[in-house]
Amino acid sequence: MIVVMKPGASQQQIEHMVERVHQLGLRSQVIVGTERTVIAALGEKRDGAKQSLELGEGVEKVVPILAPYKIASYEVKKEPTVVEALGLRVGGGQLGVIAGPCSVESRGQILELAHLVREAGGHGLRGGAYKPRTSPYSFQGLKEKGLELLAEARAATGLAVVTEVMATEQVALIANYADVLQVGARNMQNYPLLEAVGESGLPVLLKRGPSATMDEFLLAAEYVLKTGNTRVMLCERGIRTFEDHTRFTLPLASVPYLHQTTHLPVVVDPSHGTGKASLVVTMARAAVAAGADGLIVEVHPDPEKALSDGFQALTPAAFRQMMAECHKVAEVVGLKM
Amino acid sequence: MIVVMKPGASQQQIEHMVERVHQLGLRSQVIVGTERTVIAALGEKRDGAKQSLELGEGVEKVVPILAPYKIASYEVKKEPTVVEALGLRVGGGQLGVIAGPCSVESRGQILELAHLVREAGGHGLRGGAYKPRTSPYSFQGLKEKGLELLAEARAATGLAVVTEVMATEQVALIANYADVLQVGARNMQNYPLLEAVGESGLPVLLKRGPSATMDEFLLAAEYVLKTGNTRVMLCERGIRTFEDHTRFTLPLASVPYLHQTTHLPVVVDPSHGTGKASLVVTMARAAVAAGADGLIVEVHPDPEKALSDGFQALTPAAFRQMMAECHKVAEVVGLKM
Amino acid sequence: MIVVMKPGASQQQIEHMVERVHQLGLRSQVIVGTERTVIAALGEKRDGAKQSLELGEGVEKVVPILAPYKIASYEVKKEPTVVEALGLRVGGGQLGVIAGPCSVESRGQILELAHLVREAGGHGLRGGAYKPRTSPYSFQGLKEKGLELLAEARAATGLAVVTEVMATEQVALIANYADVLQVGARNMQNYPLLEAVGESGLPVLLKRGPSATMDEFLLAAEYVLKTGNTRVMLCERGIRTFEDHTRFTLPLASVPYLHQTTHLPVVVDPSHGTGKASLVVTMARAAVAAGADGLIVEVHPDPEKALSDGFQALTPAAFRQMMAECHKVAEVVGLKM
Amino acid sequence: MIVVMKPGASQQQIEHMVERVHQLGLRSQVIVGTERTVIAALGEKRDGAKQSLELGEGVEKVVPILAPYKIASYEVKKEPTVVEALGLRVGGGQLGVIAGPCSVESRGQILELAHLVREAGGHGLRGGAYKPRTSPYSFQGLKEKGLELLAEARAATGLAVVTEVMATEQVALIANYADVLQVGARNMQNYPLLEAVGESGLPVLLKRGPSATMDEFLLAAEYVLKTGNTRVMLCERGIRTFEDHTRFTLPLASVPYLHQTTHLPVVVDPSHGTGKASLVVTMARAAVAAGADGLIVEVHPDPEKALSDGFQALTPAAFRQMMAECHKVAEVVGLKM
Repeated sequence: MIVVMKPGASQQQIEHMVERVHQLGLRSQVIVGTERTVIAALGEKRDGAKQSLELGEGVEKVVPILAPYKIASYEVKKEPTVVEALGLRVGGGQLGVIAGPCSVESRGQILELAHLVREAGGHGLRGGAYKPRTSPYSFQGLKEKGLELLAEARAATGLAVVTEVMATEQVALIANYADVLQVGARNMQNYPLLEAVGESGLPVLLKRGPSATMDEFLLAAEYVLKTGNTRVMLCERGIRTFEDHTRFTLPLASVPYLHQTTHLPVVVDPSHGTGKASLVVTMARAAVAAGADGLIVEVHPDPEKALSDGFQALTPAAFRQMMAECHKVAEVVGLKM
Repeated sequence: MIVVMKPGASQQQIEHMVERVHQLGLRSQVIVGTERTVIAALGEKRDGAKQSLELGEGVEKVVPILAPYKIASYEVKKEPTVVEALGLRVGGGQLGVIAGPCSVESRGQILELAHLVREAGGHGLRGGAYKPRTSPYSFQGLKEKGLELLAEARAATGLAVVTEVMATEQVALIANYADVLQVGARNMQNYPLLEAVGESGLPVLLKRGPSATMDEFLLAAEYVLKTGNTRVMLCERGIRTFEDHTRFTLPLASVPYLHQTTHLPVVVDPSHGTGKASLVVTMARAAVAAGADGLIVEVHPDPEKALSDGFQALTPAAFRQMMAECHKVAEVVGLKM
Repeated sequence: MIVVMKPGASQQQIEHMVERVHQLGLRSQVIVGTERTVIAALGEKRDGAKQSLELGEGVEKVVPILAPYKIASYEVKKEPTVVEALGLRVGGGQLGVIAGPCSVESRGQILELAHLVREAGGHGLRGGAYKPRTSPYSFQGLKEKGLELLAEARAATGLAVVTEVMATEQVALIANYADVLQVGARNMQNYPLLEAVGESGLPVLLKRGPSATMDEFLLAAEYVLKTGNTRVMLCERGIRTFEDHTRFTLPLASVPYLHQTTHLPVVVDPSHGTGKASLVVTMARAAVAAGADGLIVEVHPDPEKALSDGFQALTPAAFRQMMAECHKVAEVVGLKM
Repeated sequence: MIVVMKPGASQQQIEHMVERVHQLGLRSQVIVGTERTVIAALGEKRDGAKQSLELGEGVEKVVPILAPYKIASYEVKKEPTVVEALGLRVGGGQLGVIAGPCSVESRGQILELAHLVREAGGHGLRGGAYKPRTSPYSFQGLKEKGLELLAEARAATGLAVVTEVMATEQVALIANYADVLQVGARNMQNYPLLEAVGESGLPVLLKRGPSATMDEFLLAAEYVLKTGNTRVMLCERGIRTFEDHTRFTLPLASVPYLHQTTHLPVVVDPSHGTGKASLVVTMARAAVAAGADGLIVEVHPDPEKALSDGFQALTPAAFRQMMAECHKVAEVVGLKM
């Protein structure tokens, strides 16, 4: 950390801060500049110290130097992590495609979609059984019945089941049915939930919160990794900005940025990331060109009649088109799909 | 809802949409404009219909007319809701002040602060026992021991205890000690938690998520209200924007906006809303001038040594100054404090 | 427009609004819903009417139905506009590449880069002669000397010269040297400048302002188009959000969105859009996959010694790599480069 | 500046960077930490050096220590700057109130409003003669005729005339009529314009751009100050965020932040800052409580019939109420109004 003193800081204030640095178990080095003095605080401590030092008299700000996450860091592990679940492989040059409806609605619907996804070359089946909905008056999912239908669809197609967990008390039940546990964007910083899905030992798809910075996103992953579970996929699903022509803003530069920062694979969700079916195919293509390790998209046999989020679901025909186009792009950027 | 057709929409597409409106149990009225046709869909349905209609062929967009929340709405109840817990009264012209440390750290710390808050004229004591922390390497709170200390501080001072609940499984335990359950910004859309705190029957302080719109905020409150618990305080604590000179951006216009939209009282948190102790007193004053029904602020006997968020905590002297200044502003804007 | 009345609006208020609609030269249609009444205001008026109606007593809000721009609209002209300048062709399936330094620094630098761009297959040469800089203490460009050097580089390579105009009084001079006039992000809503570059008759590259919505962006283009100059390229160069790992957030969904909304071609600037040289090649690839009609990137023979923005400039080797990778992606998405 | 090297940076890379620091005319100090090495670069250079160093091999990032602006800095001048124009005094404990219509529309309108502002205790008269409008189809102002009417209103009331300049070529003309030149939010980074208004010698009201950081805002002010004109008022008028219940988000914490950072006075514009007449009075009150040195608000004799932005204009009655309420708040926070 670098403790930057204010221009007029007194010698006494500087000495007090040096002492504080030592009390925190860190070494110090004082640098006297033309306009102000800064104190380098050296050592491994990552937490609390910064905030504490910031409060010192005469201190203008404290600049952290170390990244706040550890296990997720590319510096700690240079080889990309590959997450596998049945036929789904995400990372290390493998592009996994997860597709399915927003919500499981009926046996017919989920089986039809599972066969579609399978035949078009997908690897995972998404589908919500427990749905977090902005309004308490919206459809909340089929719950355990939905899980049973997902398992039946897996049995019929071999696709890995990816479904969302909303609360710690659901983990054990859902882990009986699912191959991958999804933590939704609203729960990215639900720490007891992160620990519980970590302890399940199952692969985890962690969605970025709509206002999360990269550091916060990686620290959320760190909560899962700290349980010893390293099968974590990061999912970019769009952020909240002032833009109003899309539901969220899909910032694809997070894909190459994360590839330079962490060994964890990155999945992109162009359905939530745009919120408009008419933009999904193109943005899936762009995500692949940006080097995404996976895609997760919504598809519905009849989007107009979907019980949730139909406006962003692809029709079966559009999904097949997406797969064909992404295949071509994957090939030229060196990804296996 | 207003279904706006694209300029070249065919007569057949328009008729199809009229039929869809009827299938959803709504009445229709067709309006033929110079460049395009719109269809008004009339009735009480608030959910699902919009998304479903948006998918129709030839539809450009669907514009909702009704607010998506009900119980929280000012239209449903015109008298302001007053939330009370021991001596804390929030709403209806009463300005309640909740203060205390970010985290309960020790018996000495919390008792000292409780007396300070009491003597300076505060009504509630905040203090985290279970702390949601961005990093898994940060101090996570004293847990049940912290709750016991809060209860002891209440016994000594009569202040209402306000503390955060992070998970449904904590609700029963924390409800034994607390007078108000706080739902943190990270959990604003943790729906099982909202239902669980609602069912506790205790007053709830619901913090706005950093990227939540007003509609999402009120719908989160609606999850609590729907359990029959109407003792809900909304808390504006700042939003995430591009601004980097403060930790969050504190958008005080949400106070008068909410007063025109809902009967629920609005508490402002200038500590998180700015993230800088040097800005808190002034922004507390501004919040009172904006008509806030309550304030929640962080104070610490020695902020430099706080185990969490010391950088935004007021010193005891600054807290007393804040109380004195807010008193004067409250008086001239007609609030009792 | 749809005038939405408040729930308790009186009959008199509704009648007053109907009358206001007629005074504005619009036709009205009243729709009585279960909770409130709305009034459709029909006709072609696009301006002022909305704001005026919003003020009526008993009015809750006014929802516009027509897009506010006209000439730029896809509805007005379905064939894509192709903008040409020397060998640069942007739009209609042609992908134009514009590259060069942030600032023209010396004869040697600009000639070396022009040859590099030419040999790598680029079509336009960018380079600032008049530089808008955030700080008045930063290098402000070589001014007319820079223009002369750009013209010399064009003579040597045949590349089209693209350079920025900062003020109306510069238009005539710069038009003597440049093939395309660039309006920078800071000046997107500098209306006298938009009119002046429009009247020059030269092709215009209009950069999106960092907080501009799509409507505002297209209305800025409309200022140019209204002069009769239809040679306008829209340039997505990133928006300002809370993200701090990139300089701006590059929202590539604007590319397919604009393709569905306007006939004007869309150029992407991954250099400003990320602000990090290490992310530029990947994001250029993603932009092509998103269907961009053009790319504009910064390249420098020795970025470390650039007088401005070196941190986002590609090295010559990286630029060649970008061209090779973008070629492959362009081919599979059907663009000629 | 602090040059942070990557964890594995080689000794050679470190030495290269030390040499680069010296080439830039700065002194160096090397600090060897547990995980990485950092190099302090000491001296007064504020520009270019950072970007140049960032490009070095093995460099992770460069952290600036000095604020990038100079003349605007509180460190340079501790006494608050007071800007005066006729009876308008802004800064140093004086709260100046500027009010008037969005646009000058007619002689009757502007004279009526000037008398209203005067009688209610205001000090300046705002009114646009040259209007920057998002759409080219909107009313663009009365131009010179509007200036003449403003001058007539000044003669009748003694109010200082505050009006916007959109282009350098307008400065001389407008300076003949106006007492304060306003630079609008869209032009905050129109550098030729900033220099031209600076050179006029008249007081300048500089509005914050909707996506400008505090550093960018102060650097824009620096462009004016650098001409030798120190009569600059900063105007907070709201920023663009994801919030959609207000037109912009009004971040009042910028007021105390600026008071700690610069000696220039800060004016708040609650009309643009909220975009809703119903929120303006309350937010004006809050701005005063936040310590604003001035207010600028829109008022119209009949907002419903305003030619621009009527939706955010106060009625005469609401303006009088605002003045009465702000007076009371100003008194208790120690401001003279």
